[in-house]
Amino acid sequence: MNSKIYLDNNATTKVSESVFNTMLPYLNDTYGNPSSIYSFGSSVKEEIEKSRRNIAKLLNANPSEIIFTSCASESNTTAIMSAVRSNPNKRHIISTSVEHASILETLKYLESIGYSITYIPVDNSGRINVSDIESAIREDTLLITVMMANNEIGNIYPVEEISNLAASHGILFHTDAVQAIGKIKVDVKEINVNTLSFSGHKIHAPKGIGVLYIKEGTPLVPLIFGHQETNRRGGTENAAYIVGLGAAVKDILDDNYTINKTIENLRDYLESEIINRIPNVKIYGDKDNRLSNTSSIAFKGVNPNELMLLLESFNIYVSTGSACNSVLAEPSHVLVACNANLNDYSPIRISLSKYNTKEEIDIFIKRLESVVNILRKKGKN
Amino acid sequence: MNSKIYLDNNATTKVSESVFNTMLPYLNDTYGNPSSIYSFGSSVKEEIEKSRRNIAKLLNANPSEIIFTSCASESNTTAIMSAVRSNPNKRHIISTSVEHASILETLKYLESIGYSITYIPVDNSGRINVSDIESAIREDTLLITVMMANNEIGNIYPVEEISNLAASHGILFHTDAVQAIGKIKVDVKEINVNTLSFSGHKIHAPKGIGVLYIKEGTPLVPLIFGHQETNRRGGTENAAYIVGLGAAVKDILDDNYTINKTIENLRDYLESEIINRIPNVKIYGDKDNRLSNTSSIAFKGVNPNELMLLLESFNIYVSTGSACNSVLAEPSHVLVACNANLNDYSPIRISLSKYNTKEEIDIFIKRLESVVNILRKKGKN
Repeated sequence: MNSKIYLDNNATTKVSESVFNTMLPYLNDTYGNPSSIYSFGSSVKEEIEKSRRNIAKLLNANPSEIIFTSCASESNTTAIMSAVRSNPNKRHIISTSVEHASILETLKYLESIGYSITYIPVDNSGRINVSDIESAIREDTLLITVMMANNEIGNIYPVEEISNLAASHGILFHTDAVQAIGKIKVDVKEINVNTLSFSGHKIHAPKGIGVLYIKEGTPLVPLIFGHQETNRRGGTENAAYIVGLGAAVKDILDDNYTINKTIENLRDYLESEIINRIPNVKIYGDKDNRLSNTSSIAFKGVNPNELMLLLESFNIYVSTGSACNSVLAEPSHVLVACNANLNDYSPIRISLSKYNTKEEIDIFIKRLESVVNILRKKGKN
Repeated sequence: MNSKIYLDNNATTKVSESVFNTMLPYLNDTYGNPSSIYSFGSSVKEEIEKSRRNIAKLLNANPSEIIFTSCASESNTTAIMSAVRSNPNKRHIISTSVEHASILETLKYLESIGYSITYIPVDNSGRINVSDIESAIREDTLLITVMMANNEIGNIYPVEEISNLAASHGILFHTDAVQAIGKIKVDVKEINVNTLSFSGHKIHAPKGIGVLYIKEGTPLVPLIFGHQETNRRGGTENAAYIVGLGAAVKDILDDNYTINKTIENLRDYLESEIINRIPNVKIYGDKDNRLSNTSSIAFKGVNPNELMLLLESFNIYVSTGSACNSVLAEPSHVLVACNANLNDYSPIRISLSKYNTKEEIDIFIKRLESVVNILRKKGKN
């Protein structure tokens, strides 16, 4: 069998060699509890603080503004629930219809206990109109939460503009930056957010580690209580993954985003080749303002689940939406929000990483072309 | 330098070889997202379900009653906050004065927003009187939460009796079983708890993985929202640590608690040797009902921090209380609750694991004797 071609890097990524090697001692002999005061523990704590400094550097934040969590879902829930708990007299939150499940499910819970949520719609290309957000602001709006980039269609949202709008009304602003980190430069001093979340497993660290940035002066009520992370997040520190995340972030800092141009060229090559070879193709998202690695692409009349499974038989992995929602077997809420014609044009998502090569993309396109032809012929019978 | 003698296993434990080897592929080439529907993801999901079945077997629970979290602190906070959210008309919780920080800090937060908490006191040996709990029950009591075993002094609490009391009053019962799991047999059908939490890193899995057992029929409002764990805990699954925890639990099942008798003999030998060789020693806790691996032991006039640091110079690691609290540099709330004479008898905690040997204990006792003598002489000058 040919070797695996993994094109689902918005779902999760391969752990890089540098991350793996950095983590290994902490899963082995260096097992001291970072909160212990003897050196076998405190030396682990020092490595955790090094990782925190790397992450602060990546975001242009202060290390004291960074806490480690178990995933971006935890970071997102923490940010929203903390905003709610810090503003007991306000009852309104503004978000968008294309957020990640961890945001939408938290908001759904808040609705169930009496909060009012405005979900800003998107246009056919998945774009937000910032004036819609401005119009939605109420006296009792406590939080605006808008993702930095969308996981399915790759759109990059104008968080700087929205955060300034929020600040001018004295409203907290949170951004889910999971898909943005490592792909676009994020400077929290420039974008002026109160809280920002991301996870390790989208940037070649393992699944099970996340970050919450909390701007100095922004109130924080913990989600998980305890003494770790300066009383802001309880639980014995996941030392191995924290140092691993530090290594993943160091790789981004060292590369300084040059790899993204290569990835973008590969994605653009992929899309233009597909368009050249396969008729009746539709690419979703905001082509002028998209993540460099993402392509949401539909083939008229082709069922994306069948397409995905046929590609899998060639050891090629793409997805039909976000992994978090795939178990639901419901149409993607993002594409529904885009008012997409899902009967004719239901897309697969292709998302690249630094490990993908032109050779892989060429094999993929060849397989894709033949598989789309097979499925279209089958559809006609 | 002699090799390390690690006697702080209630703080954290060494990752076992079986756990390490089981995890390794998931930190390497087997990186598919368990929620992805193609085989590269779904095969990981199958391994996660195997781990869930191991844990269910350990607790005599159904696999559907088990969710994975990032740590016991998360499990504890989830259980308490879920009980609160499921009972919006009740305002009172009963706990004890010797719980773990993740419980006490959550309760402190609830007090700050208007909840009333009764902390049941303990006697000089750290024992709870169940009739004190019964007397504390009010019309609006929504939850009783009592740990299964104490991390500092090792006391085992009568959770079966307390859970039956709670059930007879229609009150939810949660137990923090972090220190009990692997050390005493825990059967959730016998003890009849609504929720129970434990973590991996106390049983030779890594730091950063926990479990929450939720009895079928017990309402659960998630702490972290999202679609994973059948909508009960959001966040991409920490596949590596989940399968690692499964391996740690399998080791316990295979051993069937026989190792604990060996550990108990070693602990009893350690205590009797110390008492024979060193005068003016006090052992804390309930000697008739204690974890087999734990010894909280004080040497009259000896400062436990100085003792700990001198032992560290011989590569021997003990602690002066819980690691979670050690950064606070405050007297242990557990020993304060026991009304301990901390001026004269402030203890160190020695906690053993399956990796400790008699040879290590003999070296430790020899070093301890000389270090206590040095510190006592110094104290007289």
